[in-house]
Amino acid sequence: MKKIKVAILGCNGLVGRQFARLLDDHPYFELSCVTASPSSQGKQYGEAIAHGSEPNVSEKTGSLVIRKTAAAAVIESGARVAFSALPAAVAGDLELELRRNGLAVFSNASSHRLDAQVPLLVPEANADHLELARVQVREFHGGFIVTNSNCSVAGLAMALKPLTVFSLRAVVVTTFQAISGAGQRGVAAWDILGNVIPYIDNEEEKIERETRKILGTRTGERIQDHELEIYPSCSRVPVRNGHLLSVTVEFPGPVGAEAIAAAFSGFRAQPQRMALPTAPRRPLLLQGNEDRPQPLLDVQAGEPERARGMAVSVGRVRSSGNRCSFFLLVHNTVRGAAGGCVLNAELALKTNLLRGN
Amino acid sequence: MKKIKVAILGCNGLVGRQFARLLDDHPYFELSCVTASPSSQGKQYGEAIAHGSEPNVSEKTGSLVIRKTAAAAVIESGARVAFSALPAAVAGDLELELRRNGLAVFSNASSHRLDAQVPLLVPEANADHLELARVQVREFHGGFIVTNSNCSVAGLAMALKPLTVFSLRAVVVTTFQAISGAGQRGVAAWDILGNVIPYIDNEEEKIERETRKILGTRTGERIQDHELEIYPSCSRVPVRNGHLLSVTVEFPGPVGAEAIAAAFSGFRAQPQRMALPTAPRRPLLLQGNEDRPQPLLDVQAGEPERARGMAVSVGRVRSSGNRCSFFLLVHNTVRGAAGGCVLNAELALKTNLLRGN
Amino acid sequence: MKKIKVAILGCNGLVGRQFARLLDDHPYFELSCVTASPSSQGKQYGEAIAHGSEPNVSEKTGSLVIRKTAAAAVIESGARVAFSALPAAVAGDLELELRRNGLAVFSNASSHRLDAQVPLLVPEANADHLELARVQVREFHGGFIVTNSNCSVAGLAMALKPLTVFSLRAVVVTTFQAISGAGQRGVAAWDILGNVIPYIDNEEEKIERETRKILGTRTGERIQDHELEIYPSCSRVPVRNGHLLSVTVEFPGPVGAEAIAAAFSGFRAQPQRMALPTAPRRPLLLQGNEDRPQPLLDVQAGEPERARGMAVSVGRVRSSGNRCSFFLLVHNTVRGAAGGCVLNAELALKTNLLRGN
Amino acid sequence: MKKIKVAILGCNGLVGRQFARLLDDHPYFELSCVTASPSSQGKQYGEAIAHGSEPNVSEKTGSLVIRKTAAAAVIESGARVAFSALPAAVAGDLELELRRNGLAVFSNASSHRLDAQVPLLVPEANADHLELARVQVREFHGGFIVTNSNCSVAGLAMALKPLTVFSLRAVVVTTFQAISGAGQRGVAAWDILGNVIPYIDNEEEKIERETRKILGTRTGERIQDHELEIYPSCSRVPVRNGHLLSVTVEFPGPVGAEAIAAAFSGFRAQPQRMALPTAPRRPLLLQGNEDRPQPLLDVQAGEPERARGMAVSVGRVRSSGNRCSFFLLVHNTVRGAAGGCVLNAELALKTNLLRGN
Repeated sequence: MKKIKVAILGCNGLVGRQFARLLDDHPYFELSCVTASPSSQGKQYGEAIAHGSEPNVSEKTGSLVIRKTAAAAVIESGARVAFSALPAAVAGDLELELRRNGLAVFSNASSHRLDAQVPLLVPEANADHLELARVQVREFHGGFIVTNSNCSVAGLAMALKPLTVFSLRAVVVTTFQAISGAGQRGVAAWDILGNVIPYIDNEEEKIERETRKILGTRTGERIQDHELEIYPSCSRVPVRNGHLLSVTVEFPGPVGAEAIAAAFSGFRAQPQRMALPTAPRRPLLLQGNEDRPQPLLDVQAGEPERARGMAVSVGRVRSSGNRCSFFLLVHNTVRGAAGGCVLNAELALKTNLLRGN
Repeated sequence: MKKIKVAILGCNGLVGRQFARLLDDHPYFELSCVTASPSSQGKQYGEAIAHGSEPNVSEKTGSLVIRKTAAAAVIESGARVAFSALPAAVAGDLELELRRNGLAVFSNASSHRLDAQVPLLVPEANADHLELARVQVREFHGGFIVTNSNCSVAGLAMALKPLTVFSLRAVVVTTFQAISGAGQRGVAAWDILGNVIPYIDNEEEKIERETRKILGTRTGERIQDHELEIYPSCSRVPVRNGHLLSVTVEFPGPVGAEAIAAAFSGFRAQPQRMALPTAPRRPLLLQGNEDRPQPLLDVQAGEPERARGMAVSVGRVRSSGNRCSFFLLVHNTVRGAAGGCVLNAELALKTNLLRGN
Repeated sequence: MKKIKVAILGCNGLVGRQFARLLDDHPYFELSCVTASPSSQGKQYGEAIAHGSEPNVSEKTGSLVIRKTAAAAVIESGARVAFSALPAAVAGDLELELRRNGLAVFSNASSHRLDAQVPLLVPEANADHLELARVQVREFHGGFIVTNSNCSVAGLAMALKPLTVFSLRAVVVTTFQAISGAGQRGVAAWDILGNVIPYIDNEEEKIERETRKILGTRTGERIQDHELEIYPSCSRVPVRNGHLLSVTVEFPGPVGAEAIAAAFSGFRAQPQRMALPTAPRRPLLLQGNEDRPQPLLDVQAGEPERARGMAVSVGRVRSSGNRCSFFLLVHNTVRGAAGGCVLNAELALKTNLLRGN
Repeated sequence: MKKIKVAILGCNGLVGRQFARLLDDHPYFELSCVTASPSSQGKQYGEAIAHGSEPNVSEKTGSLVIRKTAAAAVIESGARVAFSALPAAVAGDLELELRRNGLAVFSNASSHRLDAQVPLLVPEANADHLELARVQVREFHGGFIVTNSNCSVAGLAMALKPLTVFSLRAVVVTTFQAISGAGQRGVAAWDILGNVIPYIDNEEEKIERETRKILGTRTGERIQDHELEIYPSCSRVPVRNGHLLSVTVEFPGPVGAEAIAAAFSGFRAQPQRMALPTAPRRPLLLQGNEDRPQPLLDVQAGEPERARGMAVSVGRVRSSGNRCSFFLLVHNTVRGAAGGCVLNAELALKTNLLRGN
């Protein structure tokens, strides 16, 4: 199979760099274009990110010359697919323009997540929602947008999916979110060192809306949101990577902790059945120790090597009456961002939505 | 009024030192005895704690010579009241022995919190439970034990009290607990630096049981536990002082956020009416900013000066249907430990349970 | 004595707020004007800083309305003295303009520190350098600029001063600088959490030049820099407040650790003799414990209350041959910034350089 | 070549686990015995360390059953080599006993580092000191002890070695040491969170003595210590892994920064020439960026994969007159502990000191 040429929009940030790592030597995709703001234009990518902490890239990827973030530059590069790590303010219009030009856009930006025709995809939870994109394909001559979810939702929706068999009434969730979620300069050390900030702008709204859409039911090319009630409370903690969530779920009747644990452990879905390259063998890892998952110890969970950071860890499953509580941990810049997008693209390719060059 | 002689049991730890600060120049009490483990015996108190970070004490307090933690040493000192900052393993028997000898024990240890005759007291929430102690007074010739609650419960019970008017059905609570809660050497840096640990041994059980007892109804000298359901999930975060709680409360019917906020703001109780020295003027401080309360900024809340760290901060009050969510912050070693005990003693004195020398 | 009206330029930052705390109810000065960037103009000061962590101000100070940072606004306010917490880029010209208008400017900015006529003052080290300002007073009809030093230098120069009796040949110094030194948003959490950054832009140059000037000899109205060699290496550490310095000094001959310790302990200077309000009784506090000074435990050193954070802590004094090593700790936003400036102004007033309204 | 059976003494700690990672699938050695304190005895190794953060081990290594730390257990296992991660208090006698029984002991403990017959080895700096061990081999029928150095010294000696061509007069060094250096529970979070502790017990003494021995000259089977003066100041910082050192070196005459940088960059030694498995291709990595090395970004430096954490990073080389300053970073539990020991053993094998089973 000839590899499909792909571009990263916004290659210098924490998510952009995770994209680069994941697309380095990818079996389906060939990274041929990286874009950033004008100040980086013309620099070699390897040099531009040499200063940062996040992953090393291959020489080949490092030698790409950074282009300006603009539709023309991407199209000119011959890329058929654009992975977008852009801020929402920039992403909205540019992604539409790329779609009009027939490109497939896999976006981490929130701009189009709630658009009726745009799949908001967590492949283990709602692979079939990808069908929405066919409307776009027809309208835009092969072009379409698929988004991943908010980084906390990526973990929450994954853990709730196997619990839908018990019927979900309500979810109370408190998040402990890592600083990387706000970008490299998003959180000032002065504000967070030795502190917790119990507020993240617009995050609780996203958790409510996106979780309901992802768990929603597709009829043809329409999604009916799930009706579960969601009560989110979000906070920032002095952790580098990994969002931890404390979740209490309410069911119509009693569900034992063992049943919940078994549902987590046994969970496999479309990406596992298709053995997609970036899919973790077990999407939900049930932690045995009573004090896990912990961001520091479990954030990189996922096998094989290519799927590190793609598994969601769950632990401390407790039930009482109609409710069940547990903690989950999701790698916010991998499963909750770049890795989620790449998995979406793999699924799109294997379901023939995405065609080669 | 002649001051009552008091002792601190376990004077060297974080809670012991908060006791010393609060009892320095106290209008009712005169610190005349401090005890610790045999290794500190005979040292001057000021010297023993000179190395630590927590509060300076007066020269007079600093010149006290540390005695061995044993009933005989306390009795010999002439103390009529013992403030106990002992670990539960040691506290259980020693507190009973002191009570048998007619002393009043105000304890931060968990050993006797659930004893039927022992008031588990958060004076703003259940001042009338102090009546339980009268049974003890009769039986032990003036001796009695009064305990404060678990440090997280101290904040939770305070915030829930004014909401009881709306009827409380269920509470889902996730804690972000400071390292000081585990004592000076309780949490290893290797375990918590840049991390969150979603487990604290036996903490969730305490939150359930103690909250129900504190909010329970007294009939004569018996307490009927409150029936609300409590779903706690506890975690340790890299914060020095101040437990932050994310709380979602369920009512039988809709209660608006404004009503909740008004209940918090307007809350005053027995300690405020009596103007007890360590009572904060406003026990619940409603924070206006959308990203508060924060441990670093708000942990010392409370006026006047003597009541610093005694007010509980609440913020981000949101309601939806029958549920209401908010964050609260409680100073775990002040309101949740030493300060709570001292306030209990002040209440006991002013209600004539505690008699002078 | 009638108080002198003073202004704070750049009132919202960490240093500006320390100025406000120190000038609140100051015996010599009356805060009558606070300025900030246009976005804060017109707001009440108390409101503008309510969100921050640093010190509470009195109601009177809090009710000041923020003016635009411009000479006209300051002059209009009737202020005779301006305390400048402005960034160097803005401070340079504005401070000159205020001087031309006859104001006394006490600046924390680096812009004019090396100007020949401008005293670079650490009052315990070089009170007599204030004489330089008389040239300015003559030229600018009473107007003059006095600067404090770089925050690390404030501690270093203070500790070196009493060692000049042994002759100083060379100083090797490594700094551990707190994040507050870079301002509220100066250091990103992503960069410093669990890390050390061994570089601070232009800091090592400042340490060399400023220390030599401060320890220099005044002849009339000229300063001859001290000739000691200085080898500085600067780093940023995840500490909130307090710069720790590891110092090794080289003398022409052997000097014992006891002699050094005695020189530190016995050190008193002009501000102590004059009992200036913000002067610590002992400018250098020799720590007895072998693991001190520590930023967390010692940053607030200084008595009386008004001088908290104004004393420099020294400890671990060791000597070997011609060299002596020790650690020192200086509160970077108090002694190294706002407090240093206020002490300079107090000295200027008491030496009749600064005249009343 | 048949692999040599080896044991890890003290397998559960941070250093023990690094040993396990490095010996997993090692080309020369076969891990056949792991020992720990009695409480772990009989457990499967993989289970015992499952809880920790540090590296995963292979199934084969994980299935080893932990033995008691005692000579008999090691001998019985058939191990010919013992890697010791024991605390000094235990290591001293046990290592002597193993030597008497003809085993080769590569120790991270400080007990025997200064023994006249024991090589204190940093193979890039003093490979020839290994000859000392031949005296032991003769005396103990093949048994001998070789130690690695203190973790800070491992980096310092490596960086100083190529500078010996310029003659070294004196070294002033300040350390920023990671918490892992004190073991998993060695530093309490309460003491270090947001703090720096300017003291590490006995560390400065080790830096002086060990550096002089390592850089010393061997004549036959005796070492003459190097005469350079060393002025160390040690501190603990809230960093997980990686000791950063600020170093100022004094030469008899001027040496330019370029010459120093070239000496660092060009440095290769015996382990590189022999291409030992754990030797980094370049033992000293000169960092180009002005704000490097940083613990978080550079601690894992070293190629190939097996040598990660074995390269010492240097940066910010500055010179002035006869002195030169730079920062260096060494991975304290890899190059400064387990990795250093394994490299020592590889060298011993390739120089025929160590014989197979």
